[in-house]
Amino acid sequence: MSDQALHVFQKLVDDSLDDHILYNLTPIEVFEPMVYSLESKGKRLRPILLLATLWLLDVDRLDHGISSALALEYIHTYSLIHDDLPAMDDDDFRRGKPSAHKKYNEATAILSGDGLLTDAFNIIVADEQVSAHEKVQLVLELSEAAGPRGMVAGQVYDMKLDNETGTLQEIQKMHSLKTGQLFKFAVRAAGVIGNASDEQQELLDRFAIFFGRGFQIHNDLMDATSDQEVTGKETGQDCVHNKLTYTSLLGIEGAIIELAMETEKAREAVDQLTEISGRDFSLLKTFLTYLELPEQVGTDE
Amino acid sequence: MSDQALHVFQKLVDDSLDDHILYNLTPIEVFEPMVYSLESKGKRLRPILLLATLWLLDVDRLDHGISSALALEYIHTYSLIHDDLPAMDDDDFRRGKPSAHKKYNEATAILSGDGLLTDAFNIIVADEQVSAHEKVQLVLELSEAAGPRGMVAGQVYDMKLDNETGTLQEIQKMHSLKTGQLFKFAVRAAGVIGNASDEQQELLDRFAIFFGRGFQIHNDLMDATSDQEVTGKETGQDCVHNKLTYTSLLGIEGAIIELAMETEKAREAVDQLTEISGRDFSLLKTFLTYLELPEQVGTDE
Repeated sequence: MSDQALHVFQKLVDDSLDDHILYNLTPIEVFEPMVYSLESKGKRLRPILLLATLWLLDVDRLDHGISSALALEYIHTYSLIHDDLPAMDDDDFRRGKPSAHKKYNEATAILSGDGLLTDAFNIIVADEQVSAHEKVQLVLELSEAAGPRGMVAGQVYDMKLDNETGTLQEIQKMHSLKTGQLFKFAVRAAGVIGNASDEQQELLDRFAIFFGRGFQIHNDLMDATSDQEVTGKETGQDCVHNKLTYTSLLGIEGAIIELAMETEKAREAVDQLTEISGRDFSLLKTFLTYLELPEQVGTDE
Repeated sequence: MSDQALHVFQKLVDDSLDDHILYNLTPIEVFEPMVYSLESKGKRLRPILLLATLWLLDVDRLDHGISSALALEYIHTYSLIHDDLPAMDDDDFRRGKPSAHKKYNEATAILSGDGLLTDAFNIIVADEQVSAHEKVQLVLELSEAAGPRGMVAGQVYDMKLDNETGTLQEIQKMHSLKTGQLFKFAVRAAGVIGNASDEQQELLDRFAIFFGRGFQIHNDLMDATSDQEVTGKETGQDCVHNKLTYTSLLGIEGAIIELAMETEKAREAVDQLTEISGRDFSLLKTFLTYLELPEQVGTDE
């Protein structure tokens, strides 16, 4: 059942986003480029993780997680728009479409990102179902995860790393901030709304951290071994830009081993969660299917 | 006393900002460019307006306004950094120093802005003195004022306006969003914390709107008539970039008359506030000294 369950959450995210867009009061000329980036079909992995975790913790409060799930997708989308800018990673494609600054222009891309980032916080506090105390906790967690001690720091480190001198430790630190923090927010937001115990939250955090690491290694492997048709963005770009990646540092085989280790640790966290909760958390293991590699990777090396 | 009073608030803002910077846990390589822009001596007009208004409403709660005042300065500073980018207004100087992308580079400038914007919300919710209910209201007000239905929309309109076809109505709408919304947040945040009555809030909003309009007209007049030594940024830039301004639309004399009218309306709002409150709000009139023009403007036209 679990694969289908994630599709149910994906549909919930997509439908909620459609509704949210429909009833939004942002002037159309400001909103249209924001919607362009929001509607490029991403995997919605972060909001799905949030809702799936909340469903496991307290199914009755699933509705209360939708605003945080949308806010998280807003933040993720803004980060992609700004990361793709010529001054940053200079990527012309994203999710199979021209990136925002190519579709429009740089000014519009910067402002769309600023708009999405600011409105993420608005979405959380405007949700009348969620208590004031929970909203404060959610804004605190999201601003820590996405801000200059979280994702923004990760992007700063990413710009500074180079292929010549970077170490495995540095790349792990960078990704734990740049990618890991938003995955961690997903399970922490679910914990706030679904009243996770401290013990549960710690294991959920561990799952998110290992999953996030695996996700990044998987990403690097796909960039190094697949083509644009599969990933929806320009592949081989890490190599072209001489970026420090898991594959540049460990080689393809080494990165595959690292990925397997992170996947295993994430799996163990889920088993422990099930054990201490007396409730089945194995739905979370379904997320590990996102870390599976196409058959040809590794075999033709 | 009133001129001196504003200096007291300015010192409160500067000291609070220094403290805040000292105890901040952001990694130094991420924080340093944020601090560079924060510490370029601006007038601190928005946070001072917030604290002065709160002082008038409820002097005992002045402490509770400091986090909102800092958050407001964070938002204002981020907006300047992003507005100065080459893709936007392309300004090389700001507050008498090289703008962020000139001092560092574009990527650092974009990320510093993103960091300041995100952390503004963190500052508000991390303040343990303020109640959860008030924090939610403050985040709601700030995200509306600064986001895609507020300041960001104003900047989008600003990029689209041009000198040939723009009208006075369009420029007023643009500035009411781009500049006016943050001034309005200043008095609304004070109202939330200082428990303004609906009637008081409405007059405070009116004061902020008229003051904000006057501020922008004053800005345009200074750009058109002064030199860099006075304003700390490159002057004559509006003309160089063929931007629609109050002076391009109304001429110097017309803009001076418009400025006098907005100043008068702001003054009337203060008088009404004093009348309905049975308490003296005339300290707010001190802000109108910021709208005064140097003697030579208008006389040598």
